[in-house]
Amino acid sequence: MLKEYCQQKVVLINAALKKFVFAQNHIPAAIYEAMSYSLFAGGKRLRPILLMAAADAVGSRGDKFINMACGLEMIHTYSLIHDDLPAMDNDDYRRGKLTNHKVFGEAMAILAGDGLLTLAFEVMLNQPDVKEKNLLLTIHEIAVSAGARGMVGGQALDLMSEGRTIDVETLRRMHEAKTGALFGAALRCGGLLGGATDEQLAALTVYAQKFGLAFQITDDILDVTGQQSVMGKPVGSDEKNHKATYVSLYSLSQAKSMAEDTVKEACEALNVFDRKADILRSLALQLLERSC
Amino acid sequence: MLKEYCQQKVVLINAALKKFVFAQNHIPAAIYEAMSYSLFAGGKRLRPILLMAAADAVGSRGDKFINMACGLEMIHTYSLIHDDLPAMDNDDYRRGKLTNHKVFGEAMAILAGDGLLTLAFEVMLNQPDVKEKNLLLTIHEIAVSAGARGMVGGQALDLMSEGRTIDVETLRRMHEAKTGALFGAALRCGGLLGGATDEQLAALTVYAQKFGLAFQITDDILDVTGQQSVMGKPVGSDEKNHKATYVSLYSLSQAKSMAEDTVKEACEALNVFDRKADILRSLALQLLERSC
Repeated sequence: MLKEYCQQKVVLINAALKKFVFAQNHIPAAIYEAMSYSLFAGGKRLRPILLMAAADAVGSRGDKFINMACGLEMIHTYSLIHDDLPAMDNDDYRRGKLTNHKVFGEAMAILAGDGLLTLAFEVMLNQPDVKEKNLLLTIHEIAVSAGARGMVGGQALDLMSEGRTIDVETLRRMHEAKTGALFGAALRCGGLLGGATDEQLAALTVYAQKFGLAFQITDDILDVTGQQSVMGKPVGSDEKNHKATYVSLYSLSQAKSMAEDTVKEACEALNVFDRKADILRSLALQLLERSC
Repeated sequence: MLKEYCQQKVVLINAALKKFVFAQNHIPAAIYEAMSYSLFAGGKRLRPILLMAAADAVGSRGDKFINMACGLEMIHTYSLIHDDLPAMDNDDYRRGKLTNHKVFGEAMAILAGDGLLTLAFEVMLNQPDVKEKNLLLTIHEIAVSAGARGMVGGQALDLMSEGRTIDVETLRRMHEAKTGALFGAALRCGGLLGGATDEQLAALTVYAQKFGLAFQITDDILDVTGQQSVMGKPVGSDEKNHKATYVSLYSLSQAKSMAEDTVKEACEALNVFDRKADILRSLALQLLERSC
């Protein structure tokens, strides 16, 4: 059921992303290609799916919020392009393909990221079928979680932690900002757009926090246990780069049991929902079986 | 009169920018400082002033739209930070101060730019006293003009033209996207927010296009005739970098007379307005006396 749900959404999201980017086709070819390249480099579309699944969970129809969903994916994609830059993580591969700057050069990669971040807002501001006030509110929440108080700030913390010993609390705060904030925005905005009650919104907020934590722990586990051919990027890079992770600060087995507990808590947070939240439940459970 | 108007607006804009950035003060110190550094590095606040002056011209009160005005300045500032990066123009000085990456490092400068662009939308989405529909429409217009179809696309064109011979038409298109689009958004959005009639909006659109062109021509002239101590950056850099400019494609005296003609056309476009557009008239005329 989860597999079919995700497949259907991925088709929908990819078609919409194509449409939105294609509407830019009279822009200079080089930046059009650089933006398209990373947007269609095989992402799992997790953030847009979470937004839609949250809207479905509160009894709305997630598909309606396709502009918001695509905006989130563009923000996620721009952040990967900038993270991979030589001045940042200096990565050559992402999802088994050369990173943006390896193909288009550093300057164009910076601009492609800037272009995608800006296009995200352009597309979200055009979301139909949502009351204007609600739309302003949700896009504002996405801006806060994508900016210096969220994702960009988390990336800055990450930079500042390089080569330093950091404790579990700092690691948690860093990930909450760097990846958790955008997950939170996806789930809360899906709920808000779908007309969530206060109780439902509170439940989605807790679920998002647990989901983000479990995502990060399983990410750290995968960097140790994963297969390069499946992940599309080198494994063991955290250890090589002396990065603090849940595996390095605890142990592999402890990290695995933390991931299980956290996924359980994520599912428990959804107890206020009926079967319409089953997709969200499955998405959390699936984190324990990640292979990429 | 223009001087007092600008001084009053600059005080207002700087206070609001401080407030907006200060609301971010629990973010990681390094990125907070990097964002603040460039935002308060002595900008003339031309784009926010144009937005407010356009709103004043149509009989509204420009000061009301301070969030929108500050958003424009943040977008302009982020674009300067990214333009100055080693991978882009590789500039060490801007407005007489070290560029962002020279002070905070390349990675933090990339993030500071990303943070400012995102904060711009956060702040604009919070603009009070504007009908929600009108607010969505104007922020959308700003996103379009700041993105790959506007400013970012112009920067890409600029990159692609490096070391090549380009004609006047390509030069015009590049500047229209790189700097003209955001001037256009400032003036049109000021008009839209202030309740411009269709006739007024059309006039502001023509004025913006002429203003942008005159700005660029006088910029190219200054690079030849300006004084480094006043400009805060080296002069003669266009010639050194073999950049096509209005001076190199025509001549200094031809460029001067083009600037004069274009400013005249900008003022003529304002004939549909009464004295309330005098500030816009003065702003165009002042371009002919630029020293920085």
